[in-house]
Amino acid sequence: MRNISTFLIGLFICASGYAQQALWGGEAIVSPDIHDDNSVTFRLNAPQAEKVEVTGDFLPTQKMQTPMGEYDAPGTAALVKNENGIWEFTTSGPLASELYSYTFIVDGLRTLDPANVFMIRDVATVTSVFIVGGGQADFYKVNNVPHGTVARRWYDSPALKEQRRITIYTPPGYESNEDTYPVFYLLHGSGGDEEAWIALGRTAQIMDNLIAQGKAKPMIVVMPNGHTQNASAPGESSRDYRPAMGGGPREAVASMEDSFGDILKFVESNYRVKKDKANRAVAGLSMGGMHSAAISAQYPETFDYIGVFSAPPIASMMVRNEDDRAKYADEFVKKLKVQQENGFKLYWIACGNTDFLYQGVLDSMKKMDEIGFDYTYKESEGGHIWRNWRIYLTEFAPMLFK
Amino acid sequence: MRNISTFLIGLFICASGYAQQALWGGEAIVSPDIHDDNSVTFRLNAPQAEKVEVTGDFLPTQKMQTPMGEYDAPGTAALVKNENGIWEFTTSGPLASELYSYTFIVDGLRTLDPANVFMIRDVATVTSVFIVGGGQADFYKVNNVPHGTVARRWYDSPALKEQRRITIYTPPGYESNEDTYPVFYLLHGSGGDEEAWIALGRTAQIMDNLIAQGKAKPMIVVMPNGHTQNASAPGESSRDYRPAMGGGPREAVASMEDSFGDILKFVESNYRVKKDKANRAVAGLSMGGMHSAAISAQYPETFDYIGVFSAPPIASMMVRNEDDRAKYADEFVKKLKVQQENGFKLYWIACGNTDFLYQGVLDSMKKMDEIGFDYTYKESEGGHIWRNWRIYLTEFAPMLFK
Repeated sequence: MRNISTFLIGLFICASGYAQQALWGGEAIVSPDIHDDNSVTFRLNAPQAEKVEVTGDFLPTQKMQTPMGEYDAPGTAALVKNENGIWEFTTSGPLASELYSYTFIVDGLRTLDPANVFMIRDVATVTSVFIVGGGQADFYKVNNVPHGTVARRWYDSPALKEQRRITIYTPPGYESNEDTYPVFYLLHGSGGDEEAWIALGRTAQIMDNLIAQGKAKPMIVVMPNGHTQNASAPGESSRDYRPAMGGGPREAVASMEDSFGDILKFVESNYRVKKDKANRAVAGLSMGGMHSAAISAQYPETFDYIGVFSAPPIASMMVRNEDDRAKYADEFVKKLKVQQENGFKLYWIACGNTDFLYQGVLDSMKKMDEIGFDYTYKESEGGHIWRNWRIYLTEFAPMLFK
Repeated sequence: MRNISTFLIGLFICASGYAQQALWGGEAIVSPDIHDDNSVTFRLNAPQAEKVEVTGDFLPTQKMQTPMGEYDAPGTAALVKNENGIWEFTTSGPLASELYSYTFIVDGLRTLDPANVFMIRDVATVTSVFIVGGGQADFYKVNNVPHGTVARRWYDSPALKEQRRITIYTPPGYESNEDTYPVFYLLHGSGGDEEAWIALGRTAQIMDNLIAQGKAKPMIVVMPNGHTQNASAPGESSRDYRPAMGGGPREAVASMEDSFGDILKFVESNYRVKKDKANRAVAGLSMGGMHSAAISAQYPETFDYIGVFSAPPIASMMVRNEDDRAKYADEFVKKLKVQQENGFKLYWIACGNTDFLYQGVLDSMKKMDEIGFDYTYKESEGGHIWRNWRIYLTEFAPMLFK
């Protein structure tokens, strides 16, 4: 009787409920099956299906027509029935190291891979995911290194008149020493919430790995919810709502910029942190990039490190009405002048060259050039996608607090 | 430009990627649709399907034949196409207040509800979930009450020679006061891991609600991984593996009982806790119930509160070989005698009357009666299911540390 779990394995096969169905059905199906050469086989047991496809970001994109215009949709590939009646598709060659998302399409119905329990929600869609290692995505894997803590907490926001949910990463060793740490505020996009960076962004894994390799300093990473009309991710607060792009159950009583002080105050009174400009960073993707630019301008003596990922730092460059655009941009440029005069160590703008906000980023930088604003620009391939944001995080974090 | 998120909502409709597909497809589908009278409608857009069913624990069970014998499987109900071509099923009446799991079966293929982002993994199966309020399941909802913190941490286990992942709930106020707290160690079953109680068990919500109502004392709840051959839930450690009943990637170097001291030491040196028997509880479901009995017997001066949910406290009552069963049971009864002599405040055994371990529970209690062991027994309806374990937690936690 050395180990209760050992003798239970056989016994529990008899138990009733869902678990057993999982054991009876599908146990022989391995999908996705990542081979030694990094080619990948997808498998699905769907005996009655007439057509099975896989769609995912590992396939070449295809042009898709929508009521709002053309866009690049993930490609599809057909699975074929093998000799055992299992539908199967193998990539034509090795996949590059990456975290990939995919779903099956069975006779027109989109469905998750029942053989793969790893799935991530992005806005209102859940997809199956897998990681191909051997390169960049080794940063996204849980490796055999010291791990930080990830806490979901609630802070009080007097500005927003409520308790709000927040995700906080503390680095390995935080609980066992007496050091004070720098703080990196990391903001999500319009489709996200306080779960976005930790789930799709793989922030905990990236930070654990960068810190273990000596590439990033140990730091606290704070991931708040940037939708001030929501208290939390869907299902995590008493205001029940279904996830939607930028959606939420009520009008916001204050903006992210105006309520940001509540977050700063919470972090600096609840954690052992260094409370000066040289030890604070703020960055975000898309809407969160615009928030980062706006927050760092509104609190000009607060951040030495600013990151704007896939977003125009001057958010109003995206306003459609030309007069409004010019007026708002001029107002914001005045703030940027003050920020420039106050000084900072790094203002890092990154964007993919097929991003739908690319032109707004170029237009912003043109305005910033006019006042000699001291930013650094990194242009990458690709569009408005998590692949880029994970890469930007991996590149940005090592530049902080040095 | 009061709020960046407001003007972005329209803009982001143009972005490329998965999010947009979610916006184009399925946005009109509401499923599950919980009506005011607590009847529920399920909907699926599957134009090419010939047969669509829903299966879930809100339906009467049906007998299912497997190679290992008969068991009670969740029932199924047929969806029918409505006038808009959407498949639909409405329950015949209101559902009792509960957290329910379900999936669709489309032409024989099990699939999650694409209109519902709420899903929970149980062993190797992911199901869609929803909560019907107005009764017991109000404890499982996030209500407008103060919320505790949920942290995923890593602790060092010299006995298991590795860092291991652990989930820890600290009650509202823990971070803002200087109090010391009692600790409740809560252990999962053979199919679970350190995510089981916090996800399917709704521990954070149950504790937040019980504490807010004054029904339970503020306490720290510690949810370790009870499979000593695993360092974490699947995908959360460097030892990559697919989830399976009791499965894991290596031989365990020590049992849960023998390595439990590492958890106790970690908690008591990292949290402000009361370090005496009167302020420690241990409980678990199924394998975790057997662990709780074994641990509380092995450390007889440690716990005043013991909970054994849906499991025989004398684990060896389940051993098939009669001689072994008698031998191991006698050995354990000796430990129980010591535990009884040392004393405790509550030894709470709970089991459903159709549980496949029910007879083992009765047999255990018979042995315990023979030595006058001072347990309390609660028998409920139903089998080896999370519905019971959430109820047991809701009943057990209020009895602790009083």
